Amino acid sequence: MADDHIQAEAPVEGDYELDNVTFSPVLAAVRSGNSAALASALGPLHPADIADLLEQVDQPTRRALVALSGREFDGEILTELDEGLRQEVVGTLPPEVFADAVRDLETDDVVDLIEDLGAPQQAAALGALGDADRVAVQQSLTYPAESAGRLMQREMAVAPAHWNVGQAIDYLRKNNDLPEQFYHIILVDPRMRPVAYVTLGRLMGSPRKVPLVDIVEDSFRTIPARQDEAEAAYAFNQYHLISAPVVDDGGRLVGVITIDDAVAILEEEHEEDILRLAGVGEGRLSDRVLATTKRRMPWLAVNLVTSILASLVIAQFAQTIAQFVALAVLMPIVASMGGNAGTQSLTVAVRSMATKDLTSANVWRVIRREALVGLINGMVFAAVMGIVGVVWFGMPLLGVVIAAAMVINLFIAGLAGVIIPVVLDKMDIDPALASGAFVTTVTDIVGFFAFLGLASLVLL
Amino acid sequence: MADDHIQAEAPVEGDYELDNVTFSPVLAAVRSGNSAALASALGPLHPADIADLLEQVDQPTRRALVALSGREFDGEILTELDEGLRQEVVGTLPPEVFADAVRDLETDDVVDLIEDLGAPQQAAALGALGDADRVAVQQSLTYPAESAGRLMQREMAVAPAHWNVGQAIDYLRKNNDLPEQFYHIILVDPRMRPVAYVTLGRLMGSPRKVPLVDIVEDSFRTIPARQDEAEAAYAFNQYHLISAPVVDDGGRLVGVITIDDAVAILEEEHEEDILRLAGVGEGRLSDRVLATTKRRMPWLAVNLVTSILASLVIAQFAQTIAQFVALAVLMPIVASMGGNAGTQSLTVAVRSMATKDLTSANVWRVIRREALVGLINGMVFAAVMGIVGVVWFGMPLLGVVIAAAMVINLFIAGLAGVIIPVVLDKMDIDPALASGAFVTTVTDIVGFFAFLGLASLVLL
Repeated sequence: MADDHIQAEAPVEGDYELDNVTFSPVLAAVRSGNSAALASALGPLHPADIADLLEQVDQPTRRALVALSGREFDGEILTELDEGLRQEVVGTLPPEVFADAVRDLETDDVVDLIEDLGAPQQAAALGALGDADRVAVQQSLTYPAESAGRLMQREMAVAPAHWNVGQAIDYLRKNNDLPEQFYHIILVDPRMRPVAYVTLGRLMGSPRKVPLVDIVEDSFRTIPARQDEAEAAYAFNQYHLISAPVVDDGGRLVGVITIDDAVAILEEEHEEDILRLAGVGEGRLSDRVLATTKRRMPWLAVNLVTSILASLVIAQFAQTIAQFVALAVLMPIVASMGGNAGTQSLTVAVRSMATKDLTSANVWRVIRREALVGLINGMVFAAVMGIVGVVWFGMPLLGVVIAAAMVINLFIAGLAGVIIPVVLDKMDIDPALASGAFVTTVTDIVGFFAFLGLASLVLL
Repeated sequence: MADDHIQAEAPVEGDYELDNVTFSPVLAAVRSGNSAALASALGPLHPADIADLLEQVDQPTRRALVALSGREFDGEILTELDEGLRQEVVGTLPPEVFADAVRDLETDDVVDLIEDLGAPQQAAALGALGDADRVAVQQSLTYPAESAGRLMQREMAVAPAHWNVGQAIDYLRKNNDLPEQFYHIILVDPRMRPVAYVTLGRLMGSPRKVPLVDIVEDSFRTIPARQDEAEAAYAFNQYHLISAPVVDDGGRLVGVITIDDAVAILEEEHEEDILRLAGVGEGRLSDRVLATTKRRMPWLAVNLVTSILASLVIAQFAQTIAQFVALAVLMPIVASMGGNAGTQSLTVAVRSMATKDLTSANVWRVIRREALVGLINGMVFAAVMGIVGVVWFGMPLLGVVIAAAMVINLFIAGLAGVIIPVVLDKMDIDPALASGAFVTTVTDIVGFFAFLGLASLVLL
């Protein structure tokens, strides 16, 4: 870093982590069944922190805490909670507390909450809402799951595109129906199609006579309601949006997405990528033992099948191994190095596809790069292992065999690490699902075949 | 999903991905050296997309494109560019174009840009700035690298806490020195310590006589300037902040961080986690072959050492393998299943620590859960492999041995997958650095030792 000479000290790690100091009074209140003490212990906590707390305690404590909160239970906690726990906690709430909680939420949060609930709880939530909000929620639910239409809120500030600053300010100051938080005024044409937006700051800083169209922001772009929510979130990140109007198929304004929703989706996408790459799929820390076991089992089953395939390769060379046990000792090294190099390439490729940095424009250059990187690292570690093979077992030919197998396997690892996720993506399969399974199958099979095959040819 | 019956179709995948349709006119203009065509091809693109384009083309094209842009080169492109490419592109820019580019940026973007540049380029950038901006940038640089102080901007809207709505509106409408985008007015006490903030929307919607302190937001929280930027970004995500005031050690207001900066940091942190888990460390898609090779080599070297350790375990049982070659065929299966299960536990643990969902409050419950999950999955796959062992090799005792080794290894994998990152974190080492290396070393060694050791006892 060019600035190392400027700084003397490292930045301070904060402590947003919930610790026992935060937990103790809450847990003590729950244990003693003291609702006043619970209310005062939860009082200073943000709903997001209370949700984290509920996720981190065990189920009996969670139920006791929710029951003891009674009518004090804040609806925002539900929207902050892991999806896996929402149904459980909602089931614990008395109906009137749940109804109060739902009424406190913005419509986009209601949609996010009830789409994961069962039908009776959905109906209870919709019944708690006023007519206008209920219609808004039901309309959002007509859009596909995980689409921008599910993510948007209906509350927004809108003005005709022909107004000037004074008209907009007067309108905003008279209107009692504005959203709780908004950052832009959306300008629409007479057919309710959004054409631009103006930030509140710019509006405040401009003379009354200035037409709104003269102070619009460059960053304006609309999001189709049917667009995948992950794509919409990508646009927020890529173009530094704070809010964006959502339009229906006819280009008419139907809602607005704000950045806090986009950030939540970005987080979910990351979670999905990192867990899929590790062969975990979904799963929350709050899931219980059996649910977790079941969820991980299919991935382990795939791994079992692929590792049996690798074993079948080894079985072909049983005779050779029986003669040279050194082969059995060394063969896992070749496979392990290939698996590692393949995982490196795979992860870089999957991550680059998620950030749209790996595209049809540079895919061939990246494949060539990964193959070359594999080849060069293969040659380096071939030299090292060749020497280890000779020194350890005193067989120069064995050194040559392991070196050659290492070069072949790391070269193939680099290729497979990019090509497999790229091909999956072309087939509209999430490339992160390639995970360990595919790539390490390739590197195990290639590694064992190259090493044992060469050994059979050279040593026998 | 409870709503599967409501939705009929999947959401639409957008196409923010840069494709050849976007690229072709740009590349054609660069090839023909036609600067007017280049300007019109780049015109509709967002600086973030132009930066992506520069990252995806090869180096000669990148240099030609920058040279051909001349004075049209937009300073924002530099802030959007991969850190690894900034120095190269800045080096290509004529000094007066670079000076123009720097002058166009907000001070937080200038800090972000120049902290990665060499001393001469830093000096050129600082020289291009006006006195006020230069002082602001230099002050930011006195904070530690990767601290909130480096991330904040100096431009902000501030009002005394005793003002009312009318005074604030009049002040904003007269002030020409406001930031380009702002969402809150920060209220300060007479010693410039921030005490609350008011959203512009709430300000607009309130009567002139209302005191500002009556319409402040609950979400208010300050960020210490020396706080780690990742912690500050976590606070934005956890508490849904849009902007937050930054304070010095005395609690005085020194700047403001906005959510777009926080989102960029969150993305960087994810990138770091996913790449470290895969043993890649850092690295960009735009890095060249030798840089990439060198960066991955240390991780492969660690893997070589650990896989040699595993081989030493195998070597202890060379006699047994020579008698029963089936052991060599089956042993990679035990190791591979353990590695897979360990990676599952590891990834869940590392991810949960990044989101602060795994804390001292629930760590023992999570360790117990992972061990149990490992044990149960171990028993399931032990049964499967026991049968495979018997059927394949016709040796019931071999089936018993592989089944027992499988249970032991998956149980240890679950334990090691959580305990290793937790211990690393306690030692102030990034738990993502545990990566494959540590955990698969444990599962390889335990797997080979359990399988071959039991085989020696039972079969010989």
